[in-house]
Amino acid sequence: MSTICAPATPSGGAIAIIRISGPEAITIVSGIFSKDIRNATGYTVHYGHIKMPDYNNIDEQLPVNLHSRTECDIIDDVLISVFKAPHSYTGEDSIEISCHGSSYIIQKILEALIHRGARMANPGEFTKRAFLAGKMDLSQAEAVADLIAASNKAAHHMAMSQMRGGVSNELNGLRQQLLHITSLIELELDFSDHEDIEFADRQQLSEQLESLHNHIQRLVKSFHTGNALKTGIPVAIIGAPNVGKSTLLNLLVHEERAIVSDIQGTTRDLIEDTIQIDGLPFRFIDTAGLRATTDRIELMGIERSLQAAQKADIIILLTEPNKDFPDIEPRFASNNHHRQIVLKVVNKSDLVIPDSSFLYHSQQSNNHIHISSLTGAGMPSLQKALISAADTLLSDAKEIGRDTTIITNLRHYEALHHILDAVSRTKQALANGISSDLIAEDLRQCLHYLADITGEEITSDEILSNIFSNFCIGK
Amino acid sequence: MSTICAPATPSGGAIAIIRISGPEAITIVSGIFSKDIRNATGYTVHYGHIKMPDYNNIDEQLPVNLHSRTECDIIDDVLISVFKAPHSYTGEDSIEISCHGSSYIIQKILEALIHRGARMANPGEFTKRAFLAGKMDLSQAEAVADLIAASNKAAHHMAMSQMRGGVSNELNGLRQQLLHITSLIELELDFSDHEDIEFADRQQLSEQLESLHNHIQRLVKSFHTGNALKTGIPVAIIGAPNVGKSTLLNLLVHEERAIVSDIQGTTRDLIEDTIQIDGLPFRFIDTAGLRATTDRIELMGIERSLQAAQKADIIILLTEPNKDFPDIEPRFASNNHHRQIVLKVVNKSDLVIPDSSFLYHSQQSNNHIHISSLTGAGMPSLQKALISAADTLLSDAKEIGRDTTIITNLRHYEALHHILDAVSRTKQALANGISSDLIAEDLRQCLHYLADITGEEITSDEILSNIFSNFCIGK
Repeated sequence: MSTICAPATPSGGAIAIIRISGPEAITIVSGIFSKDIRNATGYTVHYGHIKMPDYNNIDEQLPVNLHSRTECDIIDDVLISVFKAPHSYTGEDSIEISCHGSSYIIQKILEALIHRGARMANPGEFTKRAFLAGKMDLSQAEAVADLIAASNKAAHHMAMSQMRGGVSNELNGLRQQLLHITSLIELELDFSDHEDIEFADRQQLSEQLESLHNHIQRLVKSFHTGNALKTGIPVAIIGAPNVGKSTLLNLLVHEERAIVSDIQGTTRDLIEDTIQIDGLPFRFIDTAGLRATTDRIELMGIERSLQAAQKADIIILLTEPNKDFPDIEPRFASNNHHRQIVLKVVNKSDLVIPDSSFLYHSQQSNNHIHISSLTGAGMPSLQKALISAADTLLSDAKEIGRDTTIITNLRHYEALHHILDAVSRTKQALANGISSDLIAEDLRQCLHYLADITGEEITSDEILSNIFSNFCIGK
Repeated sequence: MSTICAPATPSGGAIAIIRISGPEAITIVSGIFSKDIRNATGYTVHYGHIKMPDYNNIDEQLPVNLHSRTECDIIDDVLISVFKAPHSYTGEDSIEISCHGSSYIIQKILEALIHRGARMANPGEFTKRAFLAGKMDLSQAEAVADLIAASNKAAHHMAMSQMRGGVSNELNGLRQQLLHITSLIELELDFSDHEDIEFADRQQLSEQLESLHNHIQRLVKSFHTGNALKTGIPVAIIGAPNVGKSTLLNLLVHEERAIVSDIQGTTRDLIEDTIQIDGLPFRFIDTAGLRATTDRIELMGIERSLQAAQKADIIILLTEPNKDFPDIEPRFASNNHHRQIVLKVVNKSDLVIPDSSFLYHSQQSNNHIHISSLTGAGMPSLQKALISAADTLLSDAKEIGRDTTIITNLRHYEALHHILDAVSRTKQALANGISSDLIAEDLRQCLHYLADITGEEITSDEILSNIFSNFCIGK
């Protein structure tokens, strides 16, 4: 096994971290560090400096030695943390060098490490080694990348839950059920001439398969939610021209900005049209104004608006006082889609004579939300309505309760889809009285797909490369 | 003293570091960490997790508690390094939290720390505390910011040398000389009626002042070099239109890119027209082509080219075969400026019949460099010539040898300028037979300015704020 190194932080900060992992990690770092750390205990920190490597005798390709014009050959004063196998992230001997965050220093330290025999790590290679060392299963490893990318409470929560074994435990439960059913089938296979055993088993099997099917279906359905929580719950704002769709969007975005910006340096990853309300991400879809028109170009824009509305989970129907709402039929729940939630919002409430009885009436009884994107009035009500709609969508997806696992990973979703198909086939086969050996084949397929998700069976190199190439360098 | 916290790395990497320093650092972190680290030894690392703070009872202003939709209230699995006063960067109890590099996680951990009583650090506040605790003097503290910003070998070397006390030692030498001279003057002041003592002292004084004056003048002059090494040695490429000035610049920039880019993630700080050759930064100044013209706009462009040439340290006079070089008179060394070095370069060598005897003749004897920005021929010669010119300029600036300190900081430069003026006045006063008490006054001024640079005397809050506000957050 080679010893790998990589920067684990971007340059441009006060500090940068360089990671080294592998059998030679401690020897290599000892060779460039001012102290001998070969006998250091794990989980200790050491202060010292790193020296410029002497390239003169070894590699003519590297930049010429500059000693002629320097009296100081120190790259940096650093802190070095030592981790000894197997008590490290990768399970190997590992070092973390904490140096000053200059790109020049980072480059020189990497050069010195490579010069001593380390090589640059591939993306995700540290986590891949952690997986190969049995420190985590594959679904937990995948959650590390999601955790780093998480930019809101919900996405963070799902990734953290998956990293700490949430998905793995759920799949283990499935696996136990599947193993149980498979063993029953195989028992039947062994005693296939005993008519009396078969009948009782088939009834029991059928029930267990039904329960398994529902369980997997819920997980498969949760992917829609998981994806929405990762990328933002899609919200379409639909309305006639000039009712204030863009102003409303700007107001929502602006309100969030104001909340986020009181801690410096943490808001730079904000995406323009995805906002967080109360920890949930909403992705707003810009739409053209709806109105009767014969203009071909405008009709195409309206067509696109209606398509966007089709895909959204939440539709804000926006109008202004004394005008009708756009005539949109919300989508109902189907096999492939969740139901849509429609919020009816009346903008420009500032234009109405402030008759409180009227406002009370309309907000409470008509179920319309009255806002003014000019004055900001009614915005808290709209935000509450969005949160409540999202909660409804989430509990639709979870169906059972709040302790339920959500699938967020496309690879897991596809594997579960295959399992669902196989379980359906098994159910059908059982109902049709198909012979046990064919049923057992389908169930073994299911177990194979499950093992693929957690990487319990040997996973192919190609799949592993695919998974870890999505990681950033240094993780 | 309050306890401060700040992210020390940008978000977007695999790992992020959050720093905490102050009397409550260890208690505060213990309160949010899964392990009690209050009795931990310094320089140890601890693995555990950080929990979401429970805001419910304390601060209604913070985002509402999301427990209703989460079963997992863990912010992140982290590594925590403990440093105990006085053995830390700041000299105070300090903690470094190494978490996953997501902006959401960084924000939540900072919120948890602030919730427990820490406050966000100002830029450079950790280093300011290190200075106030006597961990480093002011010129060393200033070098920390320079070190982080250093993007080339020369700038890195100057910053590292200053951080490790190079400038401080040099100034201490000056201080000793000044103290010696001052004590002689004050001795004379005490025995001012003894004619026989005075004469011998004045001779000695005069010589010592002369040596001191030269020493300070060298330091003041070195600022020009220091600045050039920080921001790039200014090089103007001057030539007639279409001799290939831009193509040459692109070629130089491109060659460097190719060298730098074989280590991923380290080249993003590259500035367009400043390139490194052999560890030295060169800043190329774009100029308009020179030719006889009556066009008013073009004349203005040519005028600007000539002004740029005036300011450059190195001038590349570019022409093509069988044409004359532009008629530019190089600047000679003066009190305020160093001499200019002119490189005569003939482009488009690919157009000449490849007569090797001709090439040999022209490269060696005429001192012209023949290049082809089309084929890249001759580029190594040009790069060598640039390096050699830079070395000449550097040794001009250092004048004595290679172990000499270079001043890179404007604040130090200004203080040294004041000292130089005061020493000149003292020399003059001595020559004019001015009374000792007036001379002593000037010398005390010098000592005051020197102390300002290293911060030995109490430095005003305003100066400190100015210095540390240039730092990044988390340093």
